[in-house]
Amino acid sequence: MNKKIQEPEEKEISKAVIGRLPRYFRYLAELKDEGVERISSMELSQLMQVTASQIRQDFNNFGGFGQQGYGYNVAYLYGEIGKLLGLDETHRLIVIGAGNLGQALANYANFESRGFLIKGLFDTRKEILGKKVRGIEIMPMEQLETFIAGNDIDIAVLTIPKTEALAVSKRLADCGIRGIWNFAHIDLDLPKSVKVEDVHLSDSLMKLSYAMKREG
Amino acid sequence: MNKKIQEPEEKEISKAVIGRLPRYFRYLAELKDEGVERISSMELSQLMQVTASQIRQDFNNFGGFGQQGYGYNVAYLYGEIGKLLGLDETHRLIVIGAGNLGQALANYANFESRGFLIKGLFDTRKEILGKKVRGIEIMPMEQLETFIAGNDIDIAVLTIPKTEALAVSKRLADCGIRGIWNFAHIDLDLPKSVKVEDVHLSDSLMKLSYAMKREG
Repeated sequence: MNKKIQEPEEKEISKAVIGRLPRYFRYLAELKDEGVERISSMELSQLMQVTASQIRQDFNNFGGFGQQGYGYNVAYLYGEIGKLLGLDETHRLIVIGAGNLGQALANYANFESRGFLIKGLFDTRKEILGKKVRGIEIMPMEQLETFIAGNDIDIAVLTIPKTEALAVSKRLADCGIRGIWNFAHIDLDLPKSVKVEDVHLSDSLMKLSYAMKREG
Repeated sequence: MNKKIQEPEEKEISKAVIGRLPRYFRYLAELKDEGVERISSMELSQLMQVTASQIRQDFNNFGGFGQQGYGYNVAYLYGEIGKLLGLDETHRLIVIGAGNLGQALANYANFESRGFLIKGLFDTRKEILGKKVRGIEIMPMEQLETFIAGNDIDIAVLTIPKTEALAVSKRLADCGIRGIWNFAHIDLDLPKSVKVEDVHLSDSLMKLSYAMKREG
């Protein structure tokens, strides 16, 4: 990563800005696929339905990504935001809980194209052990630590009931997992070195219901 | 809903506050289940690992929910936040796309306990039509409009590829759907009267990867 990006990192970047980075990345990926070479903040603003000033402010957190008058170089911007998001590195994942949701995630091949490789599934239910989902084997929880160590796993996806999630997350932290993508409906309590991203589906559905009630 | 809550609604409540409501609701549900009757903002603060001042500020958007010195009445607070979130009403849902993710959502019975009743599944693949998931039938897309009208459906869940999502979402808006829970990896473009809550799973995974790279 170049200096332009490293320097402004010293101040804390707001969660809101970080939360918008994947959306920029998604739009830039599409522009790149369509062969667009340059785009002004005004054009990007219209496309994404956010103000041009917000785009410039967001990008200024990371050094600005080039002159606004001339527009942004799409491929460069795509690459830089991808690097910020850690997409220039490969991640090796396991999914814990091979129920419907765990299998849905394991089947979603698009993650692989962004460098998120799902290497193993784990479950406690004996009757599904050994079964494969998209070639990925379902293994017993007893093999968790060995598999993580032997396959250089850095991310674990939790799709298990909340009653089990705390204990399993501590086990994962103990064996060096650096990131947990948590679908269990509970807040995990882990050392700061383990990053957690929650997907609380019920919370999201409640937000929809709030919006319908409030503004409907 | 009482006047205390209605009045402050006239000013706009920030997305961040709204985004925190489901988490308050979740903790209050647990406290209520445990038989806790009153809780101070300080105790709630410790439990939820947010500052007591943030809790008070958040609640003040909705009239405050009672005196802080004496603490909050758990059952009352649970009920009021539930009402804000529209959980005092029943919603009738359909899931469009009966793949792994659609079936996972249909199988998740916990939504029902919050008043989100999944009434139908839709798919284009002939080979799975008529199949049932937790008693819910998979129907062809041709029946969409008739089913929505005949079953008083207000929310549609989209778990279809992004290439189909725009057209399907317009069809849903045309037949009076008021809320869309969108798992398709694209921003929908609908009249303001249709509320959309996005769950972009790839975006969430990228945020995890960002955190791991940045602070790891």
